[in-house]
Amino acid sequence: MGWAKVAETVCPSARTLAVVGDRWTMLILRELFLGVKRFEEFQVQTGMSSNLLSTRLKRLEADGIIARRLYSKRPARHEYRLTEKGLDLYPLMLSLKAWGEKWGGLKRGAAPALSIVHKTCGHETGFQLRCGSCDAPFGAKDAVVTIGPAFAAERQKRRKSA
Amino acid sequence: MGWAKVAETVCPSARTLAVVGDRWTMLILRELFLGVKRFEEFQVQTGMSSNLLSTRLKRLEADGIIARRLYSKRPARHEYRLTEKGLDLYPLMLSLKAWGEKWGGLKRGAAPALSIVHKTCGHETGFQLRCGSCDAPFGAKDAVVTIGPAFAAERQKRRKSA
Repeated sequence: MGWAKVAETVCPSARTLAVVGDRWTMLILRELFLGVKRFEEFQVQTGMSSNLLSTRLKRLEADGIIARRLYSKRPARHEYRLTEKGLDLYPLMLSLKAWGEKWGGLKRGAAPALSIVHKTCGHETGFQLRCGSCDAPFGAKDAVVTIGPAFAAERQKRRKSA
Repeated sequence: MGWAKVAETVCPSARTLAVVGDRWTMLILRELFLGVKRFEEFQVQTGMSSNLLSTRLKRLEADGIIARRLYSKRPARHEYRLTEKGLDLYPLMLSLKAWGEKWGGLKRGAAPALSIVHKTCGHETGFQLRCGSCDAPFGAKDAVVTIGPAFAAERQKRRKSA
């Protein structure tokens, strides 16, 4: 089963993965969140081939996650920036960062690769997941997951056709 | 450049991607977070081949993200569950879900694929990202990112060797 097929689902997580679940794409997104805008720098910092990078950028643009702007006419050169849809991937980026800091096998006590300071309060920000309802800190063990009717039907169908 | 090379970095996000950045792996993790424990059900719900699934599960076990338990001796059958390291990927799963719900092109007004209820407060939980310092809701536009010395040196080195 390919991803075009996987993406035909009511599961929002799988649908996100169909768009940005490729790790090279996520590496480009990291660069964009770091403020990198230009092809050459994406290429240098990700180590991707020009072809591979070009394909990924086109896909991100087609998906409305980045927008392209001409900044030089001769030669024609483009800059890339995150759209609102792209900026909304920020929690995803932060959660990659947070997990890597804890479990990524980095040297203990080493200075962090980057600091994220909250503009408003001026302090280094960790990142807290909160229940959107009662506001308490929230983790996997605090959750009761119930699969809804459409997703349940989809899952049952897969079982039957297996 | 392959991922073994990409993973040699002080960037925690890239290190996370090196471990779980594969979308099939993320699909297995979704199943684990839904409470699925058995090989056959992973296979049915992800549509992966037995080989591909087996390789991914071994890798997740080697990385300490899942643990395997024998639940039947004849025939030998195993169950898989998330370790603490695996459970810590929950914010990542939630952010995939949240983005997909907003931007994944699902039918407006359709019942959600799954509901996540907070055990303690009993309500459906959204998910709020907060500044770990001042507790205010936090997004990409609220952040000032500064690259630390080790990551800056790594990036400069890449520029020089490009």
